[in-house]
Amino acid sequence: MIKKIILAALALLSLQPSSTMAQTKRSFTLEDIMWGGKDFWSHRPAGHFSTFWGDRMVELSVEEVKTLSDAKGRLGKASTLFTLADVNAAIDTATTQPVYALYSAQFPEAGKTLALLQTATANLLYDWKTKQIVWQGPRVSGSSHNDFTYASRSEAFVKDWNLFVTTADGKTHQVSTDGSRELQYGQSVHRDEFGINKGTFWSPKGQLLAFYRMDQTMVTDFPLVDNEPRVATLAPEKYPMAGMTSHKVTIGVYNPSTEQTIYLQAGDPTDRYFTNIAWSPDEKTIYVIEVPRSQDKAELVSYDAATGRRLAVLYTETNARYVEPCNPIVFLPWDSSKFVYQTRRDGYNHLYLFDTTGKELGQLTKGTFEVIEMLGFNETTRSIIFKANADSPICHNIYAVNVKTGKRTRLDNGQGVHHAQLSSGGRYMIDTWNAPNVYRHVDLASTTAPSAVNVWADDKCYEAFNMPQITSGTIKAADGVTDLYYRLVKPVDFDPNKTYPAIVYVYGGPHAHLVDASWNYSARPWEYYMAQRGYVMFVLDSRGSEYRGFEFESCTHRHLGDNEMKDQLEGVKFLKSLPYVDSNRLGVHGWSFGGFMTTNLMCSYPDVFKVGVAGGPVIDWKYYEVMYGERYMDTPQENPEGYESSSLLPKAKNLKGRLQIIVGYNDPTCVLQHSLSFLKACEDAGTQPDYFVYPGEGHNMAGHMQVHLHDRITRYFDDYLK
Amino acid sequence: MIKKIILAALALLSLQPSSTMAQTKRSFTLEDIMWGGKDFWSHRPAGHFSTFWGDRMVELSVEEVKTLSDAKGRLGKASTLFTLADVNAAIDTATTQPVYALYSAQFPEAGKTLALLQTATANLLYDWKTKQIVWQGPRVSGSSHNDFTYASRSEAFVKDWNLFVTTADGKTHQVSTDGSRELQYGQSVHRDEFGINKGTFWSPKGQLLAFYRMDQTMVTDFPLVDNEPRVATLAPEKYPMAGMTSHKVTIGVYNPSTEQTIYLQAGDPTDRYFTNIAWSPDEKTIYVIEVPRSQDKAELVSYDAATGRRLAVLYTETNARYVEPCNPIVFLPWDSSKFVYQTRRDGYNHLYLFDTTGKELGQLTKGTFEVIEMLGFNETTRSIIFKANADSPICHNIYAVNVKTGKRTRLDNGQGVHHAQLSSGGRYMIDTWNAPNVYRHVDLASTTAPSAVNVWADDKCYEAFNMPQITSGTIKAADGVTDLYYRLVKPVDFDPNKTYPAIVYVYGGPHAHLVDASWNYSARPWEYYMAQRGYVMFVLDSRGSEYRGFEFESCTHRHLGDNEMKDQLEGVKFLKSLPYVDSNRLGVHGWSFGGFMTTNLMCSYPDVFKVGVAGGPVIDWKYYEVMYGERYMDTPQENPEGYESSSLLPKAKNLKGRLQIIVGYNDPTCVLQHSLSFLKACEDAGTQPDYFVYPGEGHNMAGHMQVHLHDRITRYFDDYLK
Repeated sequence: MIKKIILAALALLSLQPSSTMAQTKRSFTLEDIMWGGKDFWSHRPAGHFSTFWGDRMVELSVEEVKTLSDAKGRLGKASTLFTLADVNAAIDTATTQPVYALYSAQFPEAGKTLALLQTATANLLYDWKTKQIVWQGPRVSGSSHNDFTYASRSEAFVKDWNLFVTTADGKTHQVSTDGSRELQYGQSVHRDEFGINKGTFWSPKGQLLAFYRMDQTMVTDFPLVDNEPRVATLAPEKYPMAGMTSHKVTIGVYNPSTEQTIYLQAGDPTDRYFTNIAWSPDEKTIYVIEVPRSQDKAELVSYDAATGRRLAVLYTETNARYVEPCNPIVFLPWDSSKFVYQTRRDGYNHLYLFDTTGKELGQLTKGTFEVIEMLGFNETTRSIIFKANADSPICHNIYAVNVKTGKRTRLDNGQGVHHAQLSSGGRYMIDTWNAPNVYRHVDLASTTAPSAVNVWADDKCYEAFNMPQITSGTIKAADGVTDLYYRLVKPVDFDPNKTYPAIVYVYGGPHAHLVDASWNYSARPWEYYMAQRGYVMFVLDSRGSEYRGFEFESCTHRHLGDNEMKDQLEGVKFLKSLPYVDSNRLGVHGWSFGGFMTTNLMCSYPDVFKVGVAGGPVIDWKYYEVMYGERYMDTPQENPEGYESSSLLPKAKNLKGRLQIIVGYNDPTCVLQHSLSFLKACEDAGTQPDYFVYPGEGHNMAGHMQVHLHDRITRYFDDYLK
Repeated sequence: MIKKIILAALALLSLQPSSTMAQTKRSFTLEDIMWGGKDFWSHRPAGHFSTFWGDRMVELSVEEVKTLSDAKGRLGKASTLFTLADVNAAIDTATTQPVYALYSAQFPEAGKTLALLQTATANLLYDWKTKQIVWQGPRVSGSSHNDFTYASRSEAFVKDWNLFVTTADGKTHQVSTDGSRELQYGQSVHRDEFGINKGTFWSPKGQLLAFYRMDQTMVTDFPLVDNEPRVATLAPEKYPMAGMTSHKVTIGVYNPSTEQTIYLQAGDPTDRYFTNIAWSPDEKTIYVIEVPRSQDKAELVSYDAATGRRLAVLYTETNARYVEPCNPIVFLPWDSSKFVYQTRRDGYNHLYLFDTTGKELGQLTKGTFEVIEMLGFNETTRSIIFKANADSPICHNIYAVNVKTGKRTRLDNGQGVHHAQLSSGGRYMIDTWNAPNVYRHVDLASTTAPSAVNVWADDKCYEAFNMPQITSGTIKAADGVTDLYYRLVKPVDFDPNKTYPAIVYVYGGPHAHLVDASWNYSARPWEYYMAQRGYVMFVLDSRGSEYRGFEFESCTHRHLGDNEMKDQLEGVKFLKSLPYVDSNRLGVHGWSFGGFMTTNLMCSYPDVFKVGVAGGPVIDWKYYEVMYGERYMDTPQENPEGYESSSLLPKAKNLKGRLQIIVGYNDPTCVLQHSLSFLKACEDAGTQPDYFVYPGEGHNMAGHMQVHLHDRITRYFDDYLK
């Protein structure tokens, strides 16, 4: 099944501390690792910023833009294209704010010396040959959700809940007028599920704007409270809870030239999800993947962009558990009658080729691995470039698949975790990667065959600090068959004759993994910190987590927590088998789904863990929102047994160890009702959890508050586990 | 000044444990002491219930009513008047619920064999001679704030925010129609300050009903949230915070015979308090003590009850700090032109005689002690019977003062704390009292001269339990002059050669005291429990607390917390002087004002206390309500320095020890904004308080939740102080 690689043996040579060395090194502070104290960042390599101008690799910095390679992918002497001073000399500073940095410069046309830049008040097109601003468009004060298209030099944005468009001529068009907190335009919908993260979608030529409209008037308000004003004030959040009335989404299409909006004629939007909006290259058709509330079906539906008329259902997929489309269709650049569709219908996420009549032309990728991201095309070789874990479940490598032959080629070194950025024609890529013992490399490579040339190599990091030994490996899941990957962090100054307390850091939910083959196996700096304080840290990606196929993820369907916990218990068995782990001093910590897991483990296996810290936990899935919650749990009406058995409220009475629950008081994701209901259940049952809240914080603590949070978490383990 | 008595020497002989005895005794559980476990109550004497029928003392029980004395105060053989079975045999059970117990039977007329009884659905008048129900009035389902007057056999009540009256004929009259959460009728106003605890006031003959109307529409809602429903729901509380817009109160007078309401013509009610409503004996005049929002003045104002016309200001008192009238005027039963007024204008609460023209006729009581409660009159001797601490600041004794001669006579034994209930003409009293070594005595006594005859004596309690030694004494306040009373509880099985951790239990605010000469010096059972766990417990009533005169209380004006803390530090000095107290293991605990004190002490004197538990604390007086808060602090606009220096938010950064803050999530008194703001301040400053909330609970935990709460408090001290 899954190709195994045992990475445990890959000891991190550069990080192996010796006890003599350790004396001259220092340990981290929480300021160092959670906030980036000066001493910390000064021991990490500086960032690199680069992009492409056509096929040329370009280095970006605050002050300067330089070409690093020629149009044939050959690295050469760096050559300055222009400087920040050049740009600001061209700006009319009487009317326009200066540009402060060139990090985000874009080069929209391979054949032209044009850079697209942005200030707080304008989009600018700078010609570094003539040293002129050749075009300028306004950015409206107070706007948000800004979405600029170079194709027509238009920008969509939201202001005061309404949707607007500025066109290249500088004119501002108001698209909606009745926007409100309850009726939103141009913003992400369905609570960012199904891969949705924005609400505006420009057509390829920038002539039409598809946008989401979400009516939430029928959705219950959750009474969040803002504690900051003179008298605390209600700050309600529209929050559709599992099984309850949900919002209604429709898709509009705005034409700035006619100033008209039409809506896609999709029928009654009640209990339906409209996901993964895509345009045909000719801008005439809009494609939407439609999912009913039951999430057991996905339909690829085409609409006439001019009239909104529903044209056809091109593809239908059903699954008794759930179908979860997260990627819009993508047309082949060289053939506008064909597109790529991603689905996990064979058990793993793969690429399929369809034509616009809905005819399936073939499966482009196949195997017991997952396509993680489709990056684009090499238009010359007519290949699709994508990221996948085909060589190892914990590696992310870059591959090309030839659309015609189906031949797959790995383009990188096959190690570690790679991120790639393609050149405009897709012939080259900037391959930024890391591996357990490689902090970061940036390579320039062809997308035709493996050919990486290193540009920057940052191998040494944290050399001034006492670093722990970090290893990885696999154990069997509770099913006895499936391999699960773990990360093990030993205490600094490890003495094999001593025993140590051990803390399991857990997540366990879908759409996430914690262990991969990136630097230090993705260890979090807090793990170094705890290792410096004498803890063994252990992390295991159980069934239910991502990139291991549909069965691996969905075996948790309708009873979230059960298999995930069984797998963590296998991890505990492994931990207990280590002679240096004190089996009587096991702790567990996790946030969000990991907070659910932590609380669940503390209450379901009260004799295993002595101490737990659960952040922003789900306590009962009935308090979670419909899109995510019902996908995995169905509705409370459909699955009463599953909701009952996965609820932590009846388990509150079992709590024996020390459990601290920590939440953001203004968490709009796992609302306060979860933790408060659990406290009430414990209070009624006579058990004693601990509790802490961060007023003004959401589902995760922001910025410097992470220092306070991790001080808190650490103190709790120090108080009760050390 | 204050007469001192040193009670420390009064060792509790009956409670002195010996180490050999202790082995056969048991310790309390929290269930025992906080909830009344069977084993606990079975070791406490059962309650006694009694009242008067005319001048006869009557014993009340579930099943039976018995006379214990004759009309001349002579105890004799108990004689049954009637039984529960007698009463229920007379009730038409087809239409009326039976009576379940005779505990609350009343005997409205000395000369008649009538008992007033109540069921859920009716007020009943039972004649035990004829064994008939001679009158019955309805009690309306869903009613609250019921106020029955025997004089006219009418009952006022509130239902669905409106005020109603049922008259003796069984007819129900609706007094108001526009009642709502924002516009309340017939309920207590001004947040129960100024001695106000109800909203309806029957005239002496029961012909007219004065009632409060409170318009809160202009008051900010505090967004309390009810966590119990399927989706948490807003449950807002009208809460006028210091310096902000307050409610408006008016007083109506309803005449059931005409079904007309008039309102007292008091003028614009903005920023005014209407307190201590009283009726003239002839029902023609209503007296109100009016206080402006600044609380530096009290005016006794008379109104025509028929028209509402303002008649006169009879008496005016001013004070640069505050005037706080808490007692309505009371007319002499034998002279309807004279009434008794209570004021602390000479520094202590005393009784003064006035006539209805406003002429002051004399000060009836005088001295460096306080009249605690005016109990009534002996109409025969023309004396006022009252409770005061004239013999010792921590004793409450019963006195009579002759109105004509001013001669004061103590009527009880001068020990301990007495509560008295007068017979209808006031010639006799049931004197229920206790003292440091007396659990409870009930005596029958004359109100003419000391003459107590014991009826019930309950001296032995908790004999089966390991009880600590409890002593009391005085130390000097931080001013070096004032005596402060303390209570000291030594650990069970005390060994003078050991050292023990010590916990200060603190309140410190006005309207309360913790140490008095009642049983075990008013030790709370939790103190016994902690003493059994090896803690020294210490309680000190600092300046700012009650019954010690105006200067003692009001020296805290405009800077709450400062003098109170200085005094507690004197207590700490005393504690540290005890050879068996470990000065490095001092804890502090308090609730409400005591939570403010605890948090304040932890942050202001971070090196004194190692551990604190603060319940429902005030953190910044700007978040407290106007009536109580502005009395002691003025408004934030008037006293910005005081608000700033008394706020615990700037002190959050000083926290060093372990401090747990515990609150009721639905606390409508010290709203959540206090504790959340403090957490935020600590989070910003990098200090680490602990926190816990009780969802659904208010300012104090109800019922069995006290067990959980005290388990929690105890664990915290066990974790960090033991």
